[in-house]
Amino acid sequence: MTDATPPEALALKLDAATAAFEQWSWLQPADRAPALDAIAAALEEAAPKLVAIADEETSLGEARLNGELARTVFQLRLFADVVRRGEYLGAKIDRADPAWPTGPRPDLRRVLEPLGPVVVFSASNFPFAFSVAGGDTASALASGCPVVVKAHSGHPRLSAATAEVVDLALRSVGAPEGLFDIVYGTEAGRAAIVDHRVKAGAFTGSIEAGRTLFDLAGSRPEPIPFFGELGSVNPVFVTEAAAERRGSAIVSEFVGSFTLGSGQFCTKPGILLVPAAAELLDQFPGTVPDAPLALLNDRIRTSYASAVRELGETAGVRVVVQGGDALPGPTPTLLCTTSAELLASPETLVREVFGPASLVVEYTHESELLEVARAIDGQLTATVQGEDDDTIAPELIRLLAAKAGRVLWNQWPTGVSVTPAQQHGGPYPATTAPATTSVGTEAIGRFLRPVAYQNVPQHLLPPALRDTNPLGVPQHAS
Amino acid sequence: MTDATPPEALALKLDAATAAFEQWSWLQPADRAPALDAIAAALEEAAPKLVAIADEETSLGEARLNGELARTVFQLRLFADVVRRGEYLGAKIDRADPAWPTGPRPDLRRVLEPLGPVVVFSASNFPFAFSVAGGDTASALASGCPVVVKAHSGHPRLSAATAEVVDLALRSVGAPEGLFDIVYGTEAGRAAIVDHRVKAGAFTGSIEAGRTLFDLAGSRPEPIPFFGELGSVNPVFVTEAAAERRGSAIVSEFVGSFTLGSGQFCTKPGILLVPAAAELLDQFPGTVPDAPLALLNDRIRTSYASAVRELGETAGVRVVVQGGDALPGPTPTLLCTTSAELLASPETLVREVFGPASLVVEYTHESELLEVARAIDGQLTATVQGEDDDTIAPELIRLLAAKAGRVLWNQWPTGVSVTPAQQHGGPYPATTAPATTSVGTEAIGRFLRPVAYQNVPQHLLPPALRDTNPLGVPQHAS
Repeated sequence: MTDATPPEALALKLDAATAAFEQWSWLQPADRAPALDAIAAALEEAAPKLVAIADEETSLGEARLNGELARTVFQLRLFADVVRRGEYLGAKIDRADPAWPTGPRPDLRRVLEPLGPVVVFSASNFPFAFSVAGGDTASALASGCPVVVKAHSGHPRLSAATAEVVDLALRSVGAPEGLFDIVYGTEAGRAAIVDHRVKAGAFTGSIEAGRTLFDLAGSRPEPIPFFGELGSVNPVFVTEAAAERRGSAIVSEFVGSFTLGSGQFCTKPGILLVPAAAELLDQFPGTVPDAPLALLNDRIRTSYASAVRELGETAGVRVVVQGGDALPGPTPTLLCTTSAELLASPETLVREVFGPASLVVEYTHESELLEVARAIDGQLTATVQGEDDDTIAPELIRLLAAKAGRVLWNQWPTGVSVTPAQQHGGPYPATTAPATTSVGTEAIGRFLRPVAYQNVPQHLLPPALRDTNPLGVPQHAS
Repeated sequence: MTDATPPEALALKLDAATAAFEQWSWLQPADRAPALDAIAAALEEAAPKLVAIADEETSLGEARLNGELARTVFQLRLFADVVRRGEYLGAKIDRADPAWPTGPRPDLRRVLEPLGPVVVFSASNFPFAFSVAGGDTASALASGCPVVVKAHSGHPRLSAATAEVVDLALRSVGAPEGLFDIVYGTEAGRAAIVDHRVKAGAFTGSIEAGRTLFDLAGSRPEPIPFFGELGSVNPVFVTEAAAERRGSAIVSEFVGSFTLGSGQFCTKPGILLVPAAAELLDQFPGTVPDAPLALLNDRIRTSYASAVRELGETAGVRVVVQGGDALPGPTPTLLCTTSAELLASPETLVREVFGPASLVVEYTHESELLEVARAIDGQLTATVQGEDDDTIAPELIRLLAAKAGRVLWNQWPTGVSVTPAQQHGGPYPATTAPATTSVGTEAIGRFLRPVAYQNVPQHLLPPALRDTNPLGVPQHAS
């Protein structure tokens, strides 16, 4: 059932997705909502079974997995709400204007329409929320695009079980055949992203795998958008005043954040910049927990061990807390270096380690925070722990906004709220598409493209653009 | 002055652009408006001189060039208005909500911010509107991005003269040094698009050149967005009823559209699908003008001649009106084929010929229009000439909307109005970025990326996100 999908089976699924696209994309947006709601309800009903399988395959624990499933269900209902409201369509109406400065303006009406079949690559670390029925699938289906999911090898049985739940739910509401399907195996994923029937890809995972798929998507005869969320170090900048006034609290909150979920979050803070003068390093040995933390699977455990070893052996890096390897997994590791070392070779020292390890960077002058902000690559998040009267804060925040999709003040980057204003993205390598987000309602925008209708009679216009506005969506007139 | 820019000079310009980015991007959006207005006013003042140079270099004629310059000035002022209003910022505010279903929601505020230095590749066929101070430059500057223009080899003196006007105008308003510059030569363009200081590219031109640059942009260590507007055939679908009721008018309007501007528009209708039964072919020989039409330059004249020859010699294609080669350029050519031939090899018959040639395609059954709509690649435009009661129209319009950025009814695709609802884009090969437009106010979106601010104090937020809303921009709360 979860054997690698052979090319012929993939071709049939993509043919079905293409046929489903005409039906699904031509539905009025609000008429896609029942399918999303049905999937949500079916997942809730299947929760005990799915969570049990997920726990066996990922070791994430029931509490976390129940929470993640609840988030997944919430996302599906949120996108049902998004398509019911129709604001995402961006309907714009320019009526004909004979006096337009550059010559008579025709009647022009613009709306966002779906791209076509989408391949969604599941993530290892969110077996529900960024997997088979996760945010990418929910937003793509909402937009009007069929979805073929490439299951993650870390949780194949859960993937199959979830796909079955989704499939039955879609059948129960009469959704088109082929609207949703799943494939297994690296080769099927590669074949899908270069297939001419596929019009976009969405991915959450490593820089290496994501870049390979991005390159494939871009090298097709017809290149397609590839929305990859790859890697992020999520640096935290602690000002002198903050370190002085609440250094201990920052240390303990930071430890909580980088070890949360065994450090397997894409928003895990991988660097903490602190003033050397605050002498915070001594506080870590008693604060970093020495309990072993389960990792998702053996492959991740192996690559975590080698990444920590490599970073620890880098010139200029010292060990603050040496993690061990026990059962069911490693105990956390904390390393340290100086901002001078970091600025001398940011490409070596600013890099993601997936798992419960992080790097404390001591600085001498607070202005080095600005230098580091200028030196780092694109990030999903950047955080400032500061005080309201910090004089460095305005410039620091502005520099970080140029590098990260989300800038935080006195909070921690782990925990990504699913909301309208959320931005989970950032310049490369955080993502391959810096103008997009994979979390929050704006995620639907990835699968849409604008179409302008010129001088088209009312009865031939998409309903969202008609004068009578039968869908009741916001129409922006000019 | 217009010699190829050497690598060292390019590096200095990009250093200056990078420095300018911090200043320019940190200005409040409305404070960028005076610079755009100053460029507009300076172009108006320099119009007689610039138009004279442009006419020498492009043979487009004073009337057209004056109109194009007016459009260019209008675009600059339009983007000044866009940044003054601030709606483009997409400001969204989610206040903290402890009762949010997936857990306490932090205060999250989202706004669009500029990407960084942009390289703009000028087009040959719009020496003003898609060139040095054209729509790409106007929208990039408006967004907060510095611009380095790669001049088109077809109008180097005009490029230099325009750049000087822009430069003086920017100095007059105290814009940052390095905000705008120009480079010459293919090598400088290639070097710029792969330079780490450049964060996006914008291009209007051929599929071949555009694809080369797109591939370079995507293969960088840090890939960047590349907004290329490449090629389009802009098919026109004439229904049986329309051909019967107003065949002669359609023939003559079509001829006017495909020969307009010597057929050198990216929206030139390159295919006209008509019912064979209407016997419209006979009407073309008397309607297609036999006056020679100047082309932009010798290179375009040569490639036009070979493209027309090649298409004319394709199996299944016949000549309806044989164009000649006279001075100052060719007389128009009209070829014909059948929808059966086209459907048998769309990749051979549906292709852009830049210049005054087009292909009439006769169909037997009206349903073949749907087959052709399904068979074609991405387009900037697709047009239906139909009657309100055509039963084929709803499905035809929907299929064409899946292939084209703009769908027209009973109008002609040449003439692209610069308005808020305009969409000048489309799936590949029409563009390399189907979610974007290079004409209209939405063009500014290409150079922006969202940033979410979490729990950031009021005085550290971008003004557009503050509770007091000092800029008076639309804020969407949820």
